[in-house]
Amino acid sequence: MLWTRFFLKLATFTGFVIAAGLSIVSTALAQSDPLPSWNDTAPKAAIIRFVKAVTAEGSAGFVPVDERIAVFDNEGTLSVEQPLPPQLSFELDCIQAAALEHPDWATTPPFSAALERNVKALAQAGEDGLAQIMVASHAGWSTSAYETTLSGWIASTRDARFKRLHTELVYKPMLELLAYLRANGFRTFVVSNSGIDFIRPWTEAIYGVPPNQVVGSSIKTKFELTGGRPALIRVPELNFVSDNAGKPVAIHEAIGHQPIATFGNSDGDLEMLQWTMMGRGPRLGMIVHHTDAEREYAYDRNADFGSLEKALAAAPANGWTVIDMKNDWKTIFPFEQK
Amino acid sequence: MLWTRFFLKLATFTGFVIAAGLSIVSTALAQSDPLPSWNDTAPKAAIIRFVKAVTAEGSAGFVPVDERIAVFDNEGTLSVEQPLPPQLSFELDCIQAAALEHPDWATTPPFSAALERNVKALAQAGEDGLAQIMVASHAGWSTSAYETTLSGWIASTRDARFKRLHTELVYKPMLELLAYLRANGFRTFVVSNSGIDFIRPWTEAIYGVPPNQVVGSSIKTKFELTGGRPALIRVPELNFVSDNAGKPVAIHEAIGHQPIATFGNSDGDLEMLQWTMMGRGPRLGMIVHHTDAEREYAYDRNADFGSLEKALAAAPANGWTVIDMKNDWKTIFPFEQK
Repeated sequence: MLWTRFFLKLATFTGFVIAAGLSIVSTALAQSDPLPSWNDTAPKAAIIRFVKAVTAEGSAGFVPVDERIAVFDNEGTLSVEQPLPPQLSFELDCIQAAALEHPDWATTPPFSAALERNVKALAQAGEDGLAQIMVASHAGWSTSAYETTLSGWIASTRDARFKRLHTELVYKPMLELLAYLRANGFRTFVVSNSGIDFIRPWTEAIYGVPPNQVVGSSIKTKFELTGGRPALIRVPELNFVSDNAGKPVAIHEAIGHQPIATFGNSDGDLEMLQWTMMGRGPRLGMIVHHTDAEREYAYDRNADFGSLEKALAAAPANGWTVIDMKNDWKTIFPFEQK
Repeated sequence: MLWTRFFLKLATFTGFVIAAGLSIVSTALAQSDPLPSWNDTAPKAAIIRFVKAVTAEGSAGFVPVDERIAVFDNEGTLSVEQPLPPQLSFELDCIQAAALEHPDWATTPPFSAALERNVKALAQAGEDGLAQIMVASHAGWSTSAYETTLSGWIASTRDARFKRLHTELVYKPMLELLAYLRANGFRTFVVSNSGIDFIRPWTEAIYGVPPNQVVGSSIKTKFELTGGRPALIRVPELNFVSDNAGKPVAIHEAIGHQPIATFGNSDGDLEMLQWTMMGRGPRLGMIVHHTDAEREYAYDRNADFGSLEKALAAAPANGWTVIDMKNDWKTIFPFEQK
């Protein structure tokens, strides 16, 4: 698909092109600022310097196209994760709907916290508690029933503060970065803590990242053939949690290549940063630091979700670039007037 | 990489090309037979009919490029799996090397069968027995140590009958099919019962399938950071077995899309065929039936590895095409004189 898209773009751009080499492409790309929503501060310079280094054929830092792999955390890195990560909001709505059949949930943690939408209690329920919530209301659903319900929810549920769909609450600077990297031969992957079934239905339209470049958590499924109709049925048991030390494992299993660029925003991305940045050759590691309470949110070490402490402390010594959202981003959301 | 490769090919082909649209590409492709190693029998006709149907814009059977996903089993479908699947040969060599430190293996099944290279006993050891063998000799290895050892083995170990490397014992008609599908906008995936760590190091060079389009079995790994050096360490525990009902699960997790074409050769591919073929719209499902003892091997229901019985029986009623290797393939291996 990549070359078709590129080809059509090229044809539209000039109408008629003599394609005798690749030089045209770089010229066309150089004509305009690829990152207009970024202020001219250190992070933007670091990105452009890195991309120029790895794409300069014959230079010491040159990286062949096959190895130009960039991985992006989703929640808090590409999209808003406050006050609750969108998947958790979705699951809480599902718990609410299923609660009629489970009267005991009203008094049983973590379900009681879910029904009260008690963020503190949910955050304290930990991985096991959240896992119970994630799997409880969809046991026995087919993967396609889940996708249908989710797609309806995603297309209609608005965030309380911004009155926008969750798929609109994505960061414009990061969308530009994704496109810029791809235009320079990178394959871009999302490596999220959310479930793959939750994010895949919309990542291609919003991020330009197709389903098989989305890596994430998953619950177990089993294949069933009933009356000639095959289905994958969701089993109420976690399969894999793609967070912390799980992220390098997920990258190895799903991508099979060490990335050369990593973008994260929380301590859940620390091991992914280490796994990427401690390889040989040019590397780019960036941490989105949420510093803008007015335009978005300001949080780090004390956040209930997306806590950032260790990775921030480790950044200077390791050469990881911290993006100060307030100072480094001119525009945050695609819907903003510039 | 796809568009670069295509671009360079195009440039080489004509020296100087006026690229005003995509029509050139289809014209160039139409000029020669894309499947020269296939006889002009039913399977070749079925492939070409299917590809024409899904790529004919405006027709009822048209499938957008994004959904053109084809999945290929590896052992017995793309490459020789007799007398032993190559991964098992590799693991037996590793067991042999590690046996000095495990004197008890000489008398403990399944290790005793492994040391004797007793194919019947190994086949009878079942999934659990084979799993023990698969994990025993690499516990504690890093993924990169495994890859180094494996790459040396793959580059030097010759098959006893053909005196060829395992990567040479691949089927030329299937290589042509992979290329033909890709030239028509398909993404081609390998969905193998072998371990991803075993096949990824060579699938791109041999099949043109990059690591993140290789789906397979895996063992657990864990992330470790020692003295500033990160590593993924192999843990002696199976993570996932990509066979039988595990194949649709693996496809869902790794690809996130139902394929429209599936190629297999054993009952281990039955559920993958069902999952692919029972969707709506045009579908192509094919089974490689090993019928040529002279040029390759002849086996089906009684094979120790790659047994084919249920899928073969289910083929006619479900419209799955059976490839009779002896009659339908003009050439089997790339190294054959035509």
